[in-house]
Amino acid sequence: MTHITTPAETTTAELDAIVAAAARAAGPMAAAGPGERAGWLRAAAQALEAQREALVPLAQEESHLPEGRLAGELSRTTGQLELLAAEVESGAVWDATIDHADPDWRPVARPDIRRVTVPLGPVAVYSASNFPFAFSVAGGDTASALAAGCPVVVKAHPGHPRLSVAVAEIVAGALAEAGAPGGLGLVHGFDAGVALIQHPAIRAGAFTGSIGAGRALFDLAVARPVPIPFYGELGSVNPVVVTPAAAAARGAEIGTGYAGSLSLGVGQFCTSPGILLAPAGSAVLEAAGQALSEVSAAPMLNDRIAEGYAHGLQELRGVEGVRVVVDGSTGATPTPTLLAVGIDRFAEVDRLREECFGPVSLVVEYEDPADLVPVVEGFDGQLTATVHGEPDEALAGELVDVLSTLSGRLVWNDWPTGVAVTYAMQHGGPYPATTIAGTSVGTAAVQRFGRAVAYQDVPQALLPPALRDDNPWRLARRVDGVWEPRP
Amino acid sequence: MTHITTPAETTTAELDAIVAAAARAAGPMAAAGPGERAGWLRAAAQALEAQREALVPLAQEESHLPEGRLAGELSRTTGQLELLAAEVESGAVWDATIDHADPDWRPVARPDIRRVTVPLGPVAVYSASNFPFAFSVAGGDTASALAAGCPVVVKAHPGHPRLSVAVAEIVAGALAEAGAPGGLGLVHGFDAGVALIQHPAIRAGAFTGSIGAGRALFDLAVARPVPIPFYGELGSVNPVVVTPAAAAARGAEIGTGYAGSLSLGVGQFCTSPGILLAPAGSAVLEAAGQALSEVSAAPMLNDRIAEGYAHGLQELRGVEGVRVVVDGSTGATPTPTLLAVGIDRFAEVDRLREECFGPVSLVVEYEDPADLVPVVEGFDGQLTATVHGEPDEALAGELVDVLSTLSGRLVWNDWPTGVAVTYAMQHGGPYPATTIAGTSVGTAAVQRFGRAVAYQDVPQALLPPALRDDNPWRLARRVDGVWEPRP
Repeated sequence: MTHITTPAETTTAELDAIVAAAARAAGPMAAAGPGERAGWLRAAAQALEAQREALVPLAQEESHLPEGRLAGELSRTTGQLELLAAEVESGAVWDATIDHADPDWRPVARPDIRRVTVPLGPVAVYSASNFPFAFSVAGGDTASALAAGCPVVVKAHPGHPRLSVAVAEIVAGALAEAGAPGGLGLVHGFDAGVALIQHPAIRAGAFTGSIGAGRALFDLAVARPVPIPFYGELGSVNPVVVTPAAAAARGAEIGTGYAGSLSLGVGQFCTSPGILLAPAGSAVLEAAGQALSEVSAAPMLNDRIAEGYAHGLQELRGVEGVRVVVDGSTGATPTPTLLAVGIDRFAEVDRLREECFGPVSLVVEYEDPADLVPVVEGFDGQLTATVHGEPDEALAGELVDVLSTLSGRLVWNDWPTGVAVTYAMQHGGPYPATTIAGTSVGTAAVQRFGRAVAYQDVPQALLPPALRDDNPWRLARRVDGVWEPRP
Repeated sequence: MTHITTPAETTTAELDAIVAAAARAAGPMAAAGPGERAGWLRAAAQALEAQREALVPLAQEESHLPEGRLAGELSRTTGQLELLAAEVESGAVWDATIDHADPDWRPVARPDIRRVTVPLGPVAVYSASNFPFAFSVAGGDTASALAAGCPVVVKAHPGHPRLSVAVAEIVAGALAEAGAPGGLGLVHGFDAGVALIQHPAIRAGAFTGSIGAGRALFDLAVARPVPIPFYGELGSVNPVVVTPAAAAARGAEIGTGYAGSLSLGVGQFCTSPGILLAPAGSAVLEAAGQALSEVSAAPMLNDRIAEGYAHGLQELRGVEGVRVVVDGSTGATPTPTLLAVGIDRFAEVDRLREECFGPVSLVVEYEDPADLVPVVEGFDGQLTATVHGEPDEALAGELVDVLSTLSGRLVWNDWPTGVAVTYAMQHGGPYPATTIAGTSVGTAAVQRFGRAVAYQDVPQALLPPALRDDNPWRLARRVDGVWEPRP
């Protein structure tokens, strides 16, 4: 990877050519069957694994994240491509539904109608800085768009431009070698990012990053002459509530776990627990403080994020009523900070509910558990919410119910950092956690990039393979209302 | 129904109270199981059927549509409620997905994760004028939002205000009697419609109507501090292509069918075939002209639509190169008009591709079949596209493929008017046919009003019933990647 130099910003003419190539690939990609499409995803995974020895050091150099974390993140990225390949083969992606003609259908006879999900077309993917593999060029958005049959044009994150070029070269090469008609383009620079979402040939956007940048791109996407869906995964404070029973039973353990979760990746996770509500005077705060004071300084992703963190932390520390429990540092290589505030004061200051991206968290101390639900109900939409409680505690059940109305994932007696890539995973919650309901992690992420087409009375020979009676692609399908497994 | 007087415009205070009632009902409605939810839908259907003798004449009076058509439309409306009740019972609406904890999951062990679809919350539904039952107060949008577990606030269409009041009273009464915690509110007036989509408690919008009004509401929905999805079913010209082989084999039959479809409902269907491409000199045009000249004058829905039609038709007739084949009338009770133009001229004039809502259609005559695909590729997104062809004709297959890329439903050797309510139906296509991919007809319409929540390691007792191991609601679920039928 030593041959890769820092890329220049993409010009308008280059952008047009890259999007035009994606548009040309869209038709042939849409027509490819599950075997072919799964083959592309597996080829990309294998090619990335084959370059692991070169990719991880390059990622380390640009992101300042430790080797072990990056090696694990690359495994997650290739594992996601493999899981989506299997999902493509299952047929779930096509969602094929067949209603045979029925003269007895009520209130009127129905014709033969068959519906299949087809890819939207070229997708613009905006990379995140904090996961240079898993939410970047070959990350969840790209993998799920490819699994849906869409060509992808990635806007590289300036935090790891050379890694982005390397990954794009490897993936594009692997796709071509596996016979894909195209599938991955890469652009660089702010202006290219703005032009990309406005390009008429782009049919959807996906983004992971800040509320400000994500909303700006969403606004551009919906203001187009032909508006397009824009799946933005934006900000979240991921509140954690510790009930009195849990604090009494294992307060110190909870405090230690909290410290580990909030300092993971130097607090630069979209699922980092930014707020924890705990009983005043419980063992949680002391144990968290103790554990955090032993956390070594570690480098942030880049100077821009470090500056944003220093600024945000200064604001939080300046709020009247907020006290400093662990007096961490800022700068390029900070140590974690822990703050605390009483629940009454917390309820008064909106700023305290906003995300501060970096290794800080705020403990909100309550005296009366009856104050919890009203305060929790005031949170904005969240990616995650966590309850530490006891199963037979009425309050715990109430908190699970309330928090599930405002979050995408409800975690019990564990920590929100760490997002498993599975069938049931949901990484996306009410606004501003995400711009549109949907998940950017797990197999359901594919659904974001499709639309349905129905065929009425179309002869077998002219139907797409997914809808033919002989089911040549061996898909699971719904036939006359009944789900039929893969033959 | 004679007691119903024309309702006044809803004031801001009234609107707030109606939306607040919907917001209060949202939580209890979301918690209700499939038996309860299906019971509400069936109760609404039965109550409407019980008032059929009063509702149809009231609809006739306000919409000027014939009795037979309205009686059929009411059957369609109640049938849709019944079908969605069965769909709710199948469990499809919950889309429950369970991943058990797996220490061997790759690349890392996974926790227990369970995902369920929950209702978005109160939905604003904007009624259409042209289907006073099926796309109005108790129509497809309302039925699918209720099936998703969302309370609904309907903006009544001013074309049938008294019928709207009657249907809302019947449905709200039936829901209450069936034990629903709420579910249907009704507002009147332009200002109330604008305020409704901007109300913070409204979580989604659904609309059937013109491109102009739909786009304006979409723009308001996405410009909110918290943007919401807005499912607008807007305009469509529903192109029909007749191949040379089909025209030769049965041109006269096609022409007669065409005349019937374009004059159905006085051309006031969103699936009305506004453009038909046929070989020059074929029997299609003559047969269509013959059949249309025998169609009696029939009343349009209201004066505003009649005026819009007169204006639009005048524009079309004035385009150079357009010739009048059947010289129909305008006014409150028009007769159908048939126009024709050569394909070269058609390709030059954008206006000729736009919808003209009313009993007119344009025959585009081609000499060379090779001209068809390039012209067809230039169409905007469509609700439907139709091919009349022969199965073994290469051109027919090519047209099916191209037209499926720009439409939501591809009809073969039939007509687009008449939208069956089934599992596989898709009534929604690329913009401007709809604002967001999705269908407003059929069981899949329910999916528009949900979002997913995942539960991680949550104890059985605190899980929602849809996700418990003992499956008390007897839902079909996906478990560890495998679909399991309803127990």
